[in-house]
Amino acid sequence: MEMSELHDFWAVIPAGGAGSRLWPLSRSGAPKFLHDLTGSGRTLLQQTVDRLAPLAGDRVLVVSGASHREAVTRQLPDLMASHLVTEPSPRGTMPAIGLAAAIVEAQDPDAVIGSFAADHVIGDVESFRATVVDAVAAARAGRVVTIGIEPTFPATGFGYIRLGDRAALPGTDAAYEVERFVEKPDISTATAFLETGRYRWNAGMFVVKASVLLDELALGYPELAAGLRALAADPSRVAELWPTLEPCVIDRAVAEPAADRGRVVVVPGRFDWDDVGDFDSLAGLLGAAGELRALGDATDVVGQSASGLVVASGGRTVAVVGLTDVVVVDTPDAVLVTSRAHAQQVKEVVEALRASGREHLL
Amino acid sequence: MEMSELHDFWAVIPAGGAGSRLWPLSRSGAPKFLHDLTGSGRTLLQQTVDRLAPLAGDRVLVVSGASHREAVTRQLPDLMASHLVTEPSPRGTMPAIGLAAAIVEAQDPDAVIGSFAADHVIGDVESFRATVVDAVAAARAGRVVTIGIEPTFPATGFGYIRLGDRAALPGTDAAYEVERFVEKPDISTATAFLETGRYRWNAGMFVVKASVLLDELALGYPELAAGLRALAADPSRVAELWPTLEPCVIDRAVAEPAADRGRVVVVPGRFDWDDVGDFDSLAGLLGAAGELRALGDATDVVGQSASGLVVASGGRTVAVVGLTDVVVVDTPDAVLVTSRAHAQQVKEVVEALRASGREHLL
Repeated sequence: MEMSELHDFWAVIPAGGAGSRLWPLSRSGAPKFLHDLTGSGRTLLQQTVDRLAPLAGDRVLVVSGASHREAVTRQLPDLMASHLVTEPSPRGTMPAIGLAAAIVEAQDPDAVIGSFAADHVIGDVESFRATVVDAVAAARAGRVVTIGIEPTFPATGFGYIRLGDRAALPGTDAAYEVERFVEKPDISTATAFLETGRYRWNAGMFVVKASVLLDELALGYPELAAGLRALAADPSRVAELWPTLEPCVIDRAVAEPAADRGRVVVVPGRFDWDDVGDFDSLAGLLGAAGELRALGDATDVVGQSASGLVVASGGRTVAVVGLTDVVVVDTPDAVLVTSRAHAQQVKEVVEALRASGREHLL
Repeated sequence: MEMSELHDFWAVIPAGGAGSRLWPLSRSGAPKFLHDLTGSGRTLLQQTVDRLAPLAGDRVLVVSGASHREAVTRQLPDLMASHLVTEPSPRGTMPAIGLAAAIVEAQDPDAVIGSFAADHVIGDVESFRATVVDAVAAARAGRVVTIGIEPTFPATGFGYIRLGDRAALPGTDAAYEVERFVEKPDISTATAFLETGRYRWNAGMFVVKASVLLDELALGYPELAAGLRALAADPSRVAELWPTLEPCVIDRAVAEPAADRGRVVVVPGRFDWDDVGDFDSLAGLLGAAGELRALGDATDVVGQSASGLVVASGGRTVAVVGLTDVVVVDTPDAVLVTSRAHAQQVKEVVEALRASGREHLL
């Protein structure tokens, strides 16, 4: 299906997060979204823009920290300078996305924004875009819309969305009322969720009119909503206003309370989605079951009776012998060796390095 | 016990062998004996000289390849230049040790030589030296003497020596007749060997009068013995003579046939001995059971729920998470990741690198 642009739709891409469980590949100076994690030749940030541009045209806003402004500009040479929104300091997803919403609202009070993290991997891009088209239609009707991914296994690393009845909305019949958002479950709860067929993964994708988002925010956080609108009206006040904004995340500040008020619908998505939360997830994405997969220069990798993932970004030969589901990440100043099963524990290394004063490695 | 010099004793140290199972630490340009593998601050070659010098004084001959001459000189600044014997090309242990024997014989026809590899690790140095003193006494009586290590486990990686009756020799009652040398056994044979109490590990240590060694060699290899003696008499003939010498190892050329003729005795040694044949052996030496041990700069190593060995010689941070009995060897141009159980398979990596034309890494 050929998609055409949606002229009232703006893509908002929050490009933040350190990705410390992907250390030493992901660093504070070069976080996950700046890396090509799929071997496609495009970084996750570039892929995110690539998949949204057919719908949003040049109405793409990237929200990023000041320290990544130069790298983002280098990776996205076609991005309009005014569309790169800089967070003076990290204050959570709500001020970041809310500022983008206020900027869009000031230009087009009826516009719909869709917020999509810069560091997720999506398999079937056509299916993704078709889902966004439905979500935009639902958002035009004034609802807060989320996209919920059909679970393929009882994941304990994601939050879930419980579906209610089909929503009666003009322009789309793909949306369902959201009964509630659910925190990351334990494995038995996750398994029970899958059996009901009524739960979707919360991928943190929100599609909503900019004005609706800010109005919903204003119900619980009136000062934050007012501050964001004031900032969009006069960007020169950033140094004065930004530090006064309350740090919070969009799930707590808008999605959950709006769901409690019956204001949120979900459009189910059937495309493959992964937030690449750790090296186990990355190894799975790259098909490392029973095989040794290389990310980076595969000619640098020598495997003997080994399976798992080798990230070869240190310019050196990496030899792996007789290990199953191993993870080796080689970089110029640090090398990580772990197993897929211990991938979550990588953040403990980051904590140990910080505790021992080795921030230069982070 | 304080040892005094044995004025008829020369230490011969063959410093050769690539140690490909210790790749990428051991390289053809920097083999095992040039490395400090015990964290003592001294390389294996230096330790070998250190432990023999109290017995041999400056009568220490090091036999090494031309490509290692500079490194050996740098590591042993006190070695007399005439005591560094260069093999023009590798032809096995017999020409190397035999040339040293011929050089010693030419200076002192009654001298005893003791040949000790440059890349073994010995625990109790006083006990080692006391054993050598007994071996020298037995050698003065005209016998070919080997030192046999008391086995501490049913090793399948070493050859064995079967003891006969106690040897009646002047000067020592520590020697036993050698019934035979035995090739590396399988595990059940090795276990049976241990139960008899009559087997010792063959550590490749030979103590013998230089003239006796060459005379025994002459019985089976008359041209080789004559060539070595001619070379010692006129070192300027090396380019002419060396290529004509038959390549062979001392076990086949002298030790086994001499044992068949009842000419070999063994002095049992009770000191800890290890030939550091692979990274499993090295990890064991360094006490890596249940712990993560570092060789090199320990401050470069960060472990979380990990045990095994990290060789940190790449100047980079090495983080290991959640792996048991792992082996990580970090060097400036290559990193190896394996397990202690797969340590023997490291040579397959070396073969794969050679097959793919990457000799510069070997």
